[in-house]
Amino acid sequence: MLRPHLAVVLVSGGMDSSVTAAIAATEYEPALMHVSYGQRTQARELRAFGAIADYLKAKHRLVISMDHLRLIGGSSLTDRRLPVPPADLTRADIPNSYVPFRNANLLSAAVSWAEVLGARAVYLGAVEEDSSGYPDCRASFVEAFSHAVREGTRPGSGISIVTPLIHMTKARIVKKGLALGVPFESTWSCYSREDVACGTCDSCCLRYRAFAEAGIPDPIPYHTIPAVS
Amino acid sequence: MLRPHLAVVLVSGGMDSSVTAAIAATEYEPALMHVSYGQRTQARELRAFGAIADYLKAKHRLVISMDHLRLIGGSSLTDRRLPVPPADLTRADIPNSYVPFRNANLLSAAVSWAEVLGARAVYLGAVEEDSSGYPDCRASFVEAFSHAVREGTRPGSGISIVTPLIHMTKARIVKKGLALGVPFESTWSCYSREDVACGTCDSCCLRYRAFAEAGIPDPIPYHTIPAVS
Repeated sequence: MLRPHLAVVLVSGGMDSSVTAAIAATEYEPALMHVSYGQRTQARELRAFGAIADYLKAKHRLVISMDHLRLIGGSSLTDRRLPVPPADLTRADIPNSYVPFRNANLLSAAVSWAEVLGARAVYLGAVEEDSSGYPDCRASFVEAFSHAVREGTRPGSGISIVTPLIHMTKARIVKKGLALGVPFESTWSCYSREDVACGTCDSCCLRYRAFAEAGIPDPIPYHTIPAVS
Repeated sequence: MLRPHLAVVLVSGGMDSSVTAAIAATEYEPALMHVSYGQRTQARELRAFGAIADYLKAKHRLVISMDHLRLIGGSSLTDRRLPVPPADLTRADIPNSYVPFRNANLLSAAVSWAEVLGARAVYLGAVEEDSSGYPDCRASFVEAFSHAVREGTRPGSGISIVTPLIHMTKARIVKKGLALGVPFESTWSCYSREDVACGTCDSCCLRYRAFAEAGIPDPIPYHTIPAVS
């Protein structure tokens, strides 16, 4: 049964996915999916997911586990032996926080759910430019994956992958979120700590800089105030 | 580190994936991945996987769980409330044994592992024509997904998706497997039973017909001898 008023939204609980969920909710009834994959901050992220889902009054929620990404490893987010590197936002190579092909794993599960629900779209909060340069956050990847969705689901499913933030700067994402009333104080972006944001990882620095550029104080506590230029 | 002598092979333990693994092993050192996703026969399939991995003397083995496919449901293979339908090999629609977008989930995990291992290829035993008509077994899906792999993995990973059986008839797959010495007596294809093959599901009928057309007795026991024409 097609239910074209529904859209699945992948929500980690960070600022990008929370703004994406709020955008999706302006057009669809959102079905929110959260994935624990053995990342260091998974308990804190799950709490953030719950807060965003409550804020959006989401009736459809699905929390799943992808322990295989932890077993496969290859990333400082899932392998405790690899330290999370300090931020370097000018770096050209891909940092070790990259979880190999993670977004394909997340999107595949979200599309499976969308196909069963009869949902029309899957939203992902990927950001291409103003980011850490992960290959599975690029628009070219999303476009190719969208094509695979058209070929690999039931004829007539008509599920599209929607990435409203992919070409936005992080500062613009903050402003968009504020305009939609996103409770940023409940979101969590840090890669390495669950009590206060570390302030030194890529994700903390990108977030802190985004709020600074938007001229708005970031409402979450930091262990170390990020040095951003 | 690139290890171009390695290839990841998805092995359910059925006849197609077992022949695919044997083919892969003629060109690569195979790294075998098995996925339990809440399907009815997962214990029996895992046993078949172990037998095939032992036969190929595979050093790299990874067994993972994708419980989310069971939670998402929508298929008679993962939802015990939906009966597995009797075979209808002339049917035009997609039977309820289709697990929505399953192969994208399996391939995504396999590509993640391949990227971490530095493997050159991922093998999948999908069969397009002589099959149940699942959309995620079509060559057009595999081609689109391959493009997503090129766009969504680290530059230089060079991982290709290889589906050596996709345009073969099942009878030809049986002959190919025999030529390679695949121990078909250890493989398991039935969708619904773990003691003897039911002989009534699509998978049993496709397999039994394949052996009949190849002129070779199928070495596994059946509860009911499939009626194939």
